[in-house]
Amino acid sequence: MEIALAASQKHPAPLYTLGPLIHNPQAVEYLEQQGIRVKNKVGQITRGTVILRSHGVSSGDLEKVRKKGLKIIDATCPIVKKAHFFAKFLRRNGYFLLIVGDKDHPEVEAIRSYLDEKVEVVEQPEILSRLGPWKKLGIIAQTTQSFELFEKVVAASLYRAREVRVFNTICHATAVRQKEAVEIAKKVDCMIVAGGYNSGNTQRLSGICREVQPQTYHIETASKLNPNWLANKEKIGLTAGASTPSWIIHEVEKEIRRITDR
Amino acid sequence: MEIALAASQKHPAPLYTLGPLIHNPQAVEYLEQQGIRVKNKVGQITRGTVILRSHGVSSGDLEKVRKKGLKIIDATCPIVKKAHFFAKFLRRNGYFLLIVGDKDHPEVEAIRSYLDEKVEVVEQPEILSRLGPWKKLGIIAQTTQSFELFEKVVAASLYRAREVRVFNTICHATAVRQKEAVEIAKKVDCMIVAGGYNSGNTQRLSGICREVQPQTYHIETASKLNPNWLANKEKIGLTAGASTPSWIIHEVEKEIRRITDR
Repeated sequence: MEIALAASQKHPAPLYTLGPLIHNPQAVEYLEQQGIRVKNKVGQITRGTVILRSHGVSSGDLEKVRKKGLKIIDATCPIVKKAHFFAKFLRRNGYFLLIVGDKDHPEVEAIRSYLDEKVEVVEQPEILSRLGPWKKLGIIAQTTQSFELFEKVVAASLYRAREVRVFNTICHATAVRQKEAVEIAKKVDCMIVAGGYNSGNTQRLSGICREVQPQTYHIETASKLNPNWLANKEKIGLTAGASTPSWIIHEVEKEIRRITDR
Repeated sequence: MEIALAASQKHPAPLYTLGPLIHNPQAVEYLEQQGIRVKNKVGQITRGTVILRSHGVSSGDLEKVRKKGLKIIDATCPIVKKAHFFAKFLRRNGYFLLIVGDKDHPEVEAIRSYLDEKVEVVEQPEILSRLGPWKKLGIIAQTTQSFELFEKVVAASLYRAREVRVFNTICHATAVRQKEAVEIAKKVDCMIVAGGYNSGNTQRLSGICREVQPQTYHIETASKLNPNWLANKEKIGLTAGASTPSWIIHEVEKEIRRITDR
């Protein structure tokens, strides 16, 4: 967000992001107000500056942007960049690569686009029994994946490979958030998870909380809070996805306090 | 066993093994009848031939044997040798090393003796939370360890390291035996595990079977079979440790058939 907003001050219009900068509609709306528009395809952009979003960009799109002579501002998350680095490192050193992640998440799609065919995206540990065996197996994760799935895939892979080399590419902040959210969810009577409905990590956060606290609700904004959820609840927990802007979290908190009068 | 028995034909007495060749008293007794005696310390041997046993030998003992000019016959299990190789490889490449195994098992003691201090033997995954964190972590296992523990330690280590490099050094035959024994134990009414009482892998095998079949009995020889265990049991399962000689397994099978008259 900071990189994009700074760019809107420094660079002349038009400014674009390739796909939404982050998976949060309110944040994207705010950026549009600052003159930063979303285009989903490079073909829709003819001139100006392109901001590469946090999830990274595919090799095909990057090439197109370069060919068109568009100005590039790289806002790829540095943690995502590290995942790219380790993925390439493992393939270069002869490891078959597993990416623990969602097949159609833009981050995973971008990472895959720089690699050859000896890569498999793993969404559940069960498929491991149908893959391999390998002599050398490398594993990385989508940066916002749940640690639980990562752990299960690595454990299952031990049966299928002589050597397993794992780089823990899960974003530390995300991992800590997931752990802490579960701890909170256990202690409260109702858990609110704030974040974009299209945000994979917010969905996961909400899923993880729901396992220990059935009264877990995923909302995008404060206006989606249902007072019935909070009625007669002594303790209410609140957490938010990695891409949820802090102003939205504050609004949700304020709204919870208003409804429950505390 | 074959290497040792062949040696007893080729080499003049005295012939020794450093510690019991394998963890099975009956097999060791048979070897003694063939003139191959057990000595627990190099100091007790002054001349002749030393057979290095399946578990491997510590660097200190090896040096002493060499200094004394004793003849060496290496009967170290080739799978154990591979574990030594990977342990050294990981340390040489800057990985802190975890050995999943029993601290006082001779195989683990031997492997450790060739390494420096940046090694930890892990008997339970819980201790991981008190170790590290590391940038580069290597993991191997005692060759006869349970896959379950190996899996748990690797999973727990993911929280403690940026990179985890695992060599699966568990003996394939042992791993398959454990898996199959559990499958059998689930389907029978009583499970017999034959093998040395001092054999770690037989103890583990029996422990793994007992989890799914409470009526699991670990015996060393056929004479230890209690007919009461088998009374009114429709299906009886039989498995044996890695070091259990086949003649003992056959004797146990014969005795089960005699007692149950089938």
